[in-house]
Amino acid sequence: MDHLGRVRRLQEQLSRHRLDSLLVTHLPNVRYLCGFTGSAGCLIVSERRAVFFTDGRYTSQAREEVSGAWVVIGRKVPLLSAAEWLVKHRGTSRAKKPQVLGVEGEVLTVAARKRLLEALPTEFRLRAAPQLVEQARMLKDAEEIQRIRAAVTLSASLFPTALRSMRPGVTENEVAATMEYTARKAGASGMSFPTIIASGTRSALAHGRASEQPIPGEGFVVCDFGVILAGYCSDMTRTVYVGHATEDARAMYEAVREAQQAAVEAVRPGVTAGEVDRAARKPLKKRSLAKFFTHSTGHGVGLEIHEAPRVATGQPEVLRPGMVITIEPGLYIAGKWGVRIEDMVLVTEHGCDVLTPTSKQFTAI
Amino acid sequence: MDHLGRVRRLQEQLSRHRLDSLLVTHLPNVRYLCGFTGSAGCLIVSERRAVFFTDGRYTSQAREEVSGAWVVIGRKVPLLSAAEWLVKHRGTSRAKKPQVLGVEGEVLTVAARKRLLEALPTEFRLRAAPQLVEQARMLKDAEEIQRIRAAVTLSASLFPTALRSMRPGVTENEVAATMEYTARKAGASGMSFPTIIASGTRSALAHGRASEQPIPGEGFVVCDFGVILAGYCSDMTRTVYVGHATEDARAMYEAVREAQQAAVEAVRPGVTAGEVDRAARKPLKKRSLAKFFTHSTGHGVGLEIHEAPRVATGQPEVLRPGMVITIEPGLYIAGKWGVRIEDMVLVTEHGCDVLTPTSKQFTAI
Repeated sequence: MDHLGRVRRLQEQLSRHRLDSLLVTHLPNVRYLCGFTGSAGCLIVSERRAVFFTDGRYTSQAREEVSGAWVVIGRKVPLLSAAEWLVKHRGTSRAKKPQVLGVEGEVLTVAARKRLLEALPTEFRLRAAPQLVEQARMLKDAEEIQRIRAAVTLSASLFPTALRSMRPGVTENEVAATMEYTARKAGASGMSFPTIIASGTRSALAHGRASEQPIPGEGFVVCDFGVILAGYCSDMTRTVYVGHATEDARAMYEAVREAQQAAVEAVRPGVTAGEVDRAARKPLKKRSLAKFFTHSTGHGVGLEIHEAPRVATGQPEVLRPGMVITIEPGLYIAGKWGVRIEDMVLVTEHGCDVLTPTSKQFTAI
Repeated sequence: MDHLGRVRRLQEQLSRHRLDSLLVTHLPNVRYLCGFTGSAGCLIVSERRAVFFTDGRYTSQAREEVSGAWVVIGRKVPLLSAAEWLVKHRGTSRAKKPQVLGVEGEVLTVAARKRLLEALPTEFRLRAAPQLVEQARMLKDAEEIQRIRAAVTLSASLFPTALRSMRPGVTENEVAATMEYTARKAGASGMSFPTIIASGTRSALAHGRASEQPIPGEGFVVCDFGVILAGYCSDMTRTVYVGHATEDARAMYEAVREAQQAAVEAVRPGVTAGEVDRAARKPLKKRSLAKFFTHSTGHGVGLEIHEAPRVATGQPEVLRPGMVITIEPGLYIAGKWGVRIEDMVLVTEHGCDVLTPTSKQFTAI
């Protein structure tokens, strides 16, 4: 990964935002900028330097993984090692001017901010910085896209596994366990979120993670799952019908499929995320079903399962080539059933590539 | 679970800490106080009320799970629904006095604090509150101990599974995958942390999560793992030797076993966590091995895999009956090998119960 390039592009933005340096504490951002995958570390990026801080438990891991930044193995927690370093390395020429240190307000806790302030002399000012790293992360480079494709391909291969194990009486957890085992054996470090296998009336729960409920003889089963492979996440949903589907069930499924297709067709550079969301809702409105689509249309995916941009009502973010987002409309009738269909798509120069290769045909088993 | 009792005991402490109300945003604390297991919600506890806030996605889940608190399904994110409620329900009698709202400083982000301040009129003061809920959670009640015992028993049953699959050439990930599959089939909702299977020189990494490395023909394999069962975590470590162990390897193992045993024997009410940590280090010091024990001796376990108290150098927390902690000393020789042995123990009236039933005899396979 091009850590050095990423750090340089970030450094070029600091003065525009009137930051002397940026303290990166969000671990996916740290990983993005310097490669560290452990769970204790932070990074200081100033115009001329990038320094990574961790503690003694991660000495060999840091030396192995980190590039594009100096490594400091501190005796204190990384945040305080970083503060110590800042004090030692404040520029002498501007020592009397306030030093503005950007922090990640959406991640840094109130308590960590307090500890940081206590460790820094008064010439340092903390400022909640704009989400510069999150913005950079939206645009995936070739190596990232390759990893995301591999993660998508692996998760798609789990769906036939799910179908083979799915029959009335088998618990949702058993189906999930079989998928997760297959993923792990294929090299995934884990699932990207708790696997959702939501059957019967539970299919109406948009967040119905697999439970001990046996799959009933009749009804939809929403399968929403993803893996983490080489650090990158995937996310997909397919909904199947167990039993003999009524016309009603088929109509419901087709409405979601139409909405999903409409949103996919709306994805291209220059369009806003909000417009994609609206494209998903439009066909549902026509059928007076829009009120049963109770969540947003999608989200970015990469090092994190949920990252920028949000694909939701009114979101002004303009799509650009290299963005990877989910398109996942659903309909949920409480106490009855639910359907969701989700693909991951890559924004290209002229439109988008649907990364998820799995059929969206109505399937009854 | 006795949510009502927990809320009442918290309410009784508010005035002592000069808080008009406490905003609970840490999800394990929310779950502890009112039972909600979803991923978007917060709780306001004042002297006379407890109100839980979530959004429309969790309507049925909240009604099913929450007890001991009123449920508000808001149209905004839970934090802002809570702010809105606070404004509407500020006591009229003391309307002109500042209202002190305690927040969880170790959890609330700088950005969330800002949004909260913007949503509240100036008569509200935010104050980082002491960790009242974390302190209550340290002392497990009978129902919690029962759940923890069940989680410990399930994780212990995974160790023979690991041993059966462990042989030279099999990857660490394959061993982990088999254990995780068995756990899931047995009803675990997941592992309590990424499974560590660290073989060969990787055993010297205290945080060596399972990798694609095949298990070598000779050396230690550190197996550190736990499950989440009915919301409660378990955590255990056993280290086995693959191949024909040298005297050197046996001596290393026995040193850790002695340290672990010494620490377990030190656990009883009235002793500080720091004294337990010292007990683990004492036999290692005698053998001049203490510098290779590079982490703390243990931590509390419950709804979270790491919770209070910390069992580390100088920690003043006094052990009390009902606390559940890990005892997990280890020795790590970089580039060569490592050994760690970990049990979960319950502090009782007169000493402690070792919950983990698995043998600690030196095992070569």
